[in-house]
Amino acid sequence: MTKEFDRKIGQQAIMYAFAEEEEEASLTSELTRMNWRYGKGKVGSMELQKIVAAIETLAKRQGIVNPDLYREMHSLYHAIIEAMHGVTRGQVELGGMLRTAGLRFAIVRGKPFENKEEGEWIAVAVYGTIGAPVRGFEHEAVGLGINHI
Amino acid sequence: MTKEFDRKIGQQAIMYAFAEEEEEASLTSELTRMNWRYGKGKVGSMELQKIVAAIETLAKRQGIVNPDLYREMHSLYHAIIEAMHGVTRGQVELGGMLRTAGLRFAIVRGKPFENKEEGEWIAVAVYGTIGAPVRGFEHEAVGLGINHI
Amino acid sequence: MTKEFDRKIGQQAIMYAFAEEEEEASLTSELTRMNWRYGKGKVGSMELQKIVAAIETLAKRQGIVNPDLYREMHSLYHAIIEAMHGVTRGQVELGGMLRTAGLRFAIVRGKPFENKEEGEWIAVAVYGTIGAPVRGFEHEAVGLGINHI
Amino acid sequence: MTKEFDRKIGQQAIMYAFAEEEEEASLTSELTRMNWRYGKGKVGSMELQKIVAAIETLAKRQGIVNPDLYREMHSLYHAIIEAMHGVTRGQVELGGMLRTAGLRFAIVRGKPFENKEEGEWIAVAVYGTIGAPVRGFEHEAVGLGINHI
Amino acid sequence: MTKEFDRKIGQQAIMYAFAEEEEEASLTSELTRMNWRYGKGKVGSMELQKIVAAIETLAKRQGIVNPDLYREMHSLYHAIIEAMHGVTRGQVELGGMLRTAGLRFAIVRGKPFENKEEGEWIAVAVYGTIGAPVRGFEHEAVGLGINHI
Amino acid sequence: MTKEFDRKIGQQAIMYAFAEEEEEASLTSELTRMNWRYGKGKVGSMELQKIVAAIETLAKRQGIVNPDLYREMHSLYHAIIEAMHGVTRGQVELGGMLRTAGLRFAIVRGKPFENKEEGEWIAVAVYGTIGAPVRGFEHEAVGLGINHI
Ligand SMILES: [Mg+2]
Ligand SMILES: [Mg+2]
Ligand SMILES: [Mg+2]
Ligand SMILES: [Mg+2]
Ligand SMILES: [Mg+2]
Ligand SMILES: [Mg+2]
Repeated sequence: MTKEFDRKIGQQAIMYAFAEEEEEASLTSELTRMNWRYGKGKVGSMELQKIVAAIETLAKRQGIVNPDLYREMHSLYHAIIEAMHGVTRGQVELGGMLRTAGLRFAIVRGKPFENKEEGEWIAVAVYGTIGAPVRGFEHEAVGLGINHI
Repeated sequence: MTKEFDRKIGQQAIMYAFAEEEEEASLTSELTRMNWRYGKGKVGSMELQKIVAAIETLAKRQGIVNPDLYREMHSLYHAIIEAMHGVTRGQVELGGMLRTAGLRFAIVRGKPFENKEEGEWIAVAVYGTIGAPVRGFEHEAVGLGINHI
Repeated sequence: MTKEFDRKIGQQAIMYAFAEEEEEASLTSELTRMNWRYGKGKVGSMELQKIVAAIETLAKRQGIVNPDLYREMHSLYHAIIEAMHGVTRGQVELGGMLRTAGLRFAIVRGKPFENKEEGEWIAVAVYGTIGAPVRGFEHEAVGLGINHI
Repeated sequence: MTKEFDRKIGQQAIMYAFAEEEEEASLTSELTRMNWRYGKGKVGSMELQKIVAAIETLAKRQGIVNPDLYREMHSLYHAIIEAMHGVTRGQVELGGMLRTAGLRFAIVRGKPFENKEEGEWIAVAVYGTIGAPVRGFEHEAVGLGINHI
Repeated sequence: MTKEFDRKIGQQAIMYAFAEEEEEASLTSELTRMNWRYGKGKVGSMELQKIVAAIETLAKRQGIVNPDLYREMHSLYHAIIEAMHGVTRGQVELGGMLRTAGLRFAIVRGKPFENKEEGEWIAVAVYGTIGAPVRGFEHEAVGLGINHI
Repeated sequence: MTKEFDRKIGQQAIMYAFAEEEEEASLTSELTRMNWRYGKGKVGSMELQKIVAAIETLAKRQGIVNPDLYREMHSLYHAIIEAMHGVTRGQVELGGMLRTAGLRFAIVRGKPFENKEEGEWIAVAVYGTIGAPVRGFEHEAVGLGINHI
């Protein structure tokens, strides 16, 4: 059985962010089978706060986090910022450094540890392109943030 | 044809870092077909410089970069450091912050742009776990660095 | 005598930032007795520059620094930015990371060292909450910057 | 009643780190009354990892965190690193920048929010001096890290 | 012969940024003699992206880089950002930290290595003042970024 | 008269760091004429703290700063660290990122402002190469730190 693979919440989140429609179905059916929560979205902006907001909004709308609990939003927020470090590689900034990003993001919430008491964790994966505000003048970027929730 | 997919050098590098043996074969046969260079390795350390060294060494040994050209080593170095930003998320440091990392890394060198004149680029993908120097007290981390070469 | 305690300019500044009215009186009478200069204010913003400006303005208005001397403004500026590192913990940024801060700040200027020749130093203490732009979805933060003036 | 004051877990942690023996008693009796967990220690080092280790060790020994749960150690770790940002103000590094720190630290774990569902949070406060490895050539520094646990 | 001196592309770029008219002529005739490309400009702003844009624009207009090749713009971009690290010393940010910069910049593209295969490199030098948005309340700053192109 | 030029303490420091013997004489006679203090040294290391120490030691030995006053050492220290930001461009770290630096540094202390009350300032300029611990696999780097003293 591929149980161990399934538990790699970060890898799952990145595969899900990468996935095109066909692959997505098999990934999500697996996540559903494990009773994990998940969601996926897209956002493009020169303003980093819009990317943070887009991820937070999706997580709330899809019921991945409880929007009324600061505890959960705090966990998600730090996971998002950690993911954006991978995308921005140095300064967590876009427009102020004259660059823009077009990203797909995936959020997965589940129990990645064998020990039940480790409880739930959240993974935020971000994948897309970053570069000059000129079409095609951009390269890929990826980020992953993981937090206990 | 999946040409467009193939050109996503960063995604390719991450998939390659993720890949277990079986999947690896199909990925690398694809990379070979495109005449791209690639390699893969493993490293675990509390000393970040050992991770940088391991990636550089593999790239040189596998002929992914020309070890006698600073130009190529410079390109690789910056790609590695950018990838490590995703892993470390804030401070590019491991032991000095009492954490350790166990990582698989993949390097891919090829021509990701349709325009031939864009030439060769290099992608360094890093995937594994980061955490306390205590077995199991760690979570996943990922990083991607891309540079023109 | 509590002379030694008094000389802890950073601790004094933080206690002063924490202080509610009653406690404030005993703190400031102590500072006055030592001929130290001090002031206190409040500011809430998603724009970090407004926080810097609020602290600078108060320092100038209260005569804690000489607004006509760059030397003193330079010292104050670096103390403010150092204090904001404690508040922001990683990236000296608020709105661009979709977070806001509601802060009380205190500035103290005096001679914290026994050796008279060490002259005057300035401490900027900042205390309050940082978090999402949603009431209650925030936690405390503190920062302290100290500089020779 | 000063209930609201008591809930300021970050301020409590800093006051506790500041406190000399006499004041400590009243602070801790208050924390005990609320069923919060707490502990306090001292550490001086040019090696940042030793400071992290000292705080982790105390938290484990005093039963503030469960040393067998990564979830709790992860929460504590990030709170420590956030606190060290306030102390180091830019680069989370000591000896590598030729500076040393002598610090008192306090850890408080409790329920700072009125809403019961917000659960437990942890605050790590650090206070002391930072400077050249020369006695007296140092100034105060403070840091606070807060995390859900 | 001063060939070796000439090859110091970074020093050349900084001298060129420093140079007033008279000195400029001897510097640029030297650069021309070596078939190196170069250009110089001025920019003042509280918005860092405007500084990046001004440097990019000059490089494109003067033919120092090929504006149709992302490869070259990517190399230039990273050189600019590296140079701005020297100017900003910590956070690559201006207005958001309530500071402004008035800068002269120079770009030099050439072959600084004896080994022909090392090919072309680009140096971006930035020199000027940084400080409060108050005339005279500013001090000098310098930055240098170098990249293979 | 070139008085205004002379007052550019940062540019002076960098020119002095660049200067070979012949040019040095005219630079320093100018600095002497203005009663400014100055000194120059060399250091190569993978350990950043050794570079900081080398600059501090020279400043003390040459009487540029008073080694018995923390106030002056504090001013110098922050100027050095600011200068090292220009050299390291992101992470103030060398060996931990598998890179080494070979640097010349110059320290200048004087009164760069027309207004006498602005008093003394210190400039630390650093120039040299940074790169892999392999001869020739390095490029130039520069840094400037300026502080009131
Ligand atoms: Mg973590
Ligand atoms: Mg790039
Ligand atoms: Mg200091
Ligand atoms: Mg937080
Ligand atoms: Mg480089
Ligand atoms: Mg300054």
